Amino acid sequence: MTRAPSPALLDALAKLLGPKGYTTDADIMAPWLTDWRGKYTGRAAAMLSPGSTEEVAAIVRLCADAGVALVPQGGNSGMVGGATPDVGGNQLLLSLRRMNRVRSIDTSARSAVAEAGVILETFHHEALTHGLRFPLTLGGKGSATIGGLVSTNAGGTQVLRHGTMRALVAGIEAVLPDGSIFDGLAPLKKDNRGYDLRHLLCGAEGTLGIVTAATLHLVPAAAARRTAWIAIDTPHRALLLLRQLDASIGRELEGFEIIPHGCLDAVLRHIPQTRAPIAAKHPWYVLAELAGASDQAVGDALERELGAALDAGLILDVVIAKNDRESDDFWRLRDSISEAERAEGPALQHDVSVPVNLMPTFIADNPARLTAAFPGARALSFGHLGDGNVHHHVQPPVGADGPAWLAKHGTAVSRLVYAHVIELGGSISAEHGIGQMKRDLLAELDSPARLAALRGIKAGLDPAGLFNPGKLIA
Amino acid sequence: MTRAPSPALLDALAKLLGPKGYTTDADIMAPWLTDWRGKYTGRAAAMLSPGSTEEVAAIVRLCADAGVALVPQGGNSGMVGGATPDVGGNQLLLSLRRMNRVRSIDTSARSAVAEAGVILETFHHEALTHGLRFPLTLGGKGSATIGGLVSTNAGGTQVLRHGTMRALVAGIEAVLPDGSIFDGLAPLKKDNRGYDLRHLLCGAEGTLGIVTAATLHLVPAAAARRTAWIAIDTPHRALLLLRQLDASIGRELEGFEIIPHGCLDAVLRHIPQTRAPIAAKHPWYVLAELAGASDQAVGDALERELGAALDAGLILDVVIAKNDRESDDFWRLRDSISEAERAEGPALQHDVSVPVNLMPTFIADNPARLTAAFPGARALSFGHLGDGNVHHHVQPPVGADGPAWLAKHGTAVSRLVYAHVIELGGSISAEHGIGQMKRDLLAELDSPARLAALRGIKAGLDPAGLFNPGKLIA
Repeated sequence: MTRAPSPALLDALAKLLGPKGYTTDADIMAPWLTDWRGKYTGRAAAMLSPGSTEEVAAIVRLCADAGVALVPQGGNSGMVGGATPDVGGNQLLLSLRRMNRVRSIDTSARSAVAEAGVILETFHHEALTHGLRFPLTLGGKGSATIGGLVSTNAGGTQVLRHGTMRALVAGIEAVLPDGSIFDGLAPLKKDNRGYDLRHLLCGAEGTLGIVTAATLHLVPAAAARRTAWIAIDTPHRALLLLRQLDASIGRELEGFEIIPHGCLDAVLRHIPQTRAPIAAKHPWYVLAELAGASDQAVGDALERELGAALDAGLILDVVIAKNDRESDDFWRLRDSISEAERAEGPALQHDVSVPVNLMPTFIADNPARLTAAFPGARALSFGHLGDGNVHHHVQPPVGADGPAWLAKHGTAVSRLVYAHVIELGGSISAEHGIGQMKRDLLAELDSPARLAALRGIKAGLDPAGLFNPGKLIA
Repeated sequence: MTRAPSPALLDALAKLLGPKGYTTDADIMAPWLTDWRGKYTGRAAAMLSPGSTEEVAAIVRLCADAGVALVPQGGNSGMVGGATPDVGGNQLLLSLRRMNRVRSIDTSARSAVAEAGVILETFHHEALTHGLRFPLTLGGKGSATIGGLVSTNAGGTQVLRHGTMRALVAGIEAVLPDGSIFDGLAPLKKDNRGYDLRHLLCGAEGTLGIVTAATLHLVPAAAARRTAWIAIDTPHRALLLLRQLDASIGRELEGFEIIPHGCLDAVLRHIPQTRAPIAAKHPWYVLAELAGASDQAVGDALERELGAALDAGLILDVVIAKNDRESDDFWRLRDSISEAERAEGPALQHDVSVPVNLMPTFIADNPARLTAAFPGARALSFGHLGDGNVHHHVQPPVGADGPAWLAKHGTAVSRLVYAHVIELGGSISAEHGIGQMKRDLLAELDSPARLAALRGIKAGLDPAGLFNPGKLIA
């Protein structure tokens, strides 16, 4: 068990960090003790906001000596309660937000060193001023921080071409549970000195180390992008289309999102100033985006390939955005799905992945399994088809008392969805992580071999269990 | 300490594996108890050659119960003695070579599941029969196995475009030290269920798990390739050329090797039927290769870009291979460097990496440091400039008694080289790994933070220390 911080420890931390870096003020701490979706609320003995890696190391050493637990936090925009302390009040909230410097940008090597507290959107802008682009983006970009994105191995809508955060991290600096600083910032393309700490810390949700900075890959700023809204019959055909585009223009293909008509319909009903790019109703839509060297080039490529797909009967209809504003309008439909769904009422949300080739099977088969067990339940799958990752939401039957139905059937519905995912070799957390939300689920559903390995790694690196206890694994 | 296998354990293993999978015959074992370079020789109580993952798991459970150590081995073509048992004779050699099936190839997903014992060259051929290519190759391709390549995170000459083995491994199956089977073969593009075991096992040199199979990414078979032999003034200019080619034709650029005149000269003197592509003597050469959709396209691109570099004075001269045979001749010069060097006499070999941008500095500055400390010592750096990875060899002064000079100065020379690499943020093992050769060096030179983490991981996953003991970390 971890201990309550003694007054002497709190004094030492207050002295170390000064008034900018230390507070126990309830009003100041409050916004950071509840996750942004309001699902988890915890307590903390104090909030620590160090301004440097050395201060983080000093905090960790003091807390390790005292046996006091630390909960690292970035922008507090996670989806699984991974950055919210428990309700005991003994844990210390460790905010990395003050460490918000972009330490350097190397335009010739196309990389930058950013501290953990740099906000994603700020980093996007900083890269652009150097003619470069950081090719990872997601809804929470205005609050999500580099440290949080690394620690959760964040995904988003550009994974198809550029990979998840893991693929963009060339180096890591972190403070380990013994208070030592691991300096792995040098961007080595080859380094075979044993176990890869960079990959281990990426996605470890702050349970093995406090990420204080990262060296990140950048790409040339895209000169042009062009977006298509495509009507299609089935997810299987969408995958065929993806394979065709991948073979012909794969290098430029940055986005490939699948959207069922039900999602579009909800967006049109609930989100002001939205309209369907294709007036006729079709069962599925694909939002595909190309980024490339020139407007002409990407436009021509999209027209050629999608024209051929239309002629071949693979797709039903297509509209290509004429300019960036129209592209933005298409993306707004995609990005508004969650908001529209909230307006529809409560739903169960599953962030799952399966091998890409099996994703159409999952999308096609799961609703039938669901309605066989739970008559009237409505499933909507949307998202990153090209990554084998959909957000699979289940809504109560029309006319049912939503909250009551979910209270009664929610757990069983999710178990059915996850069992199907596992049957297909998939993951019960594709991009949101485990945190506290899926911790017990993971312990129940993951293979004993893998669970034992996770526990062994945690015990080996954080034997006292002081880094983000209660998250990921019990 | 690990124990000697009891007669009862050996009986049980013999019964489990049958005559094909179990031997204590000294003649049969001998070739596998010395590494291919003849630097390390060990002993083994028996050689186990399981035919399936289940047999590997059964072996591990029996040995775990008995406290007996296992040394996994693939093609025995490693560079650091990582697959050679110690001299005590208590360890069991675990050969994965009988597990040599390509379990499946999925042409639409461009991936294959290959068992640990599949030989790289065989796998190349198998992929080609499906119109696909496995884009990793190296000198030992005729003996190196998939399991060994995964466990050592192998590199080679195509890393520039396709990455090291790590980037090509989409899934892993392994037997863990408790005898459980970790089935991580499903190729999930997104999976955030905590610590990434795939990346941890890749490059772990068999100290954390016995890799039994891997899901591997394939790429379309290259329709055409074209190779250029370029004369250039300095490594700095070579890096400038790389950055230019990367910006203009980066997607097609598969190889970018740097070769000093001294290496070429040794090859011409010692290797029959070789000739210099450019007759005049220049200080450095670059071997660049493009792979692409058509002969015409890659040829035109090379001519355009290298013509411009010549006009701009960035390069001194260039010859573009007219056909595959000429390309092969260029590559033969590069691939014969080690053989030619052996003919020259003994040398110290360092497989090191630094951030790509610093590689020219290292190559330019290290010889001066060396000769200042060791007058007459000759340094030759060649290899993967685009990966920040050179093979940095140091030869005794001309006329010196080579072996005696190396016996006297070898350790100090290597320390000087490694200190320089570390000063630049680099790695003392870029692609060959640690094994037994660099184990003590790593313990001496790596940061205490990183070493403690490596030891923690090993203790957490293999607390009894039965998987490849004495390799990587003590």
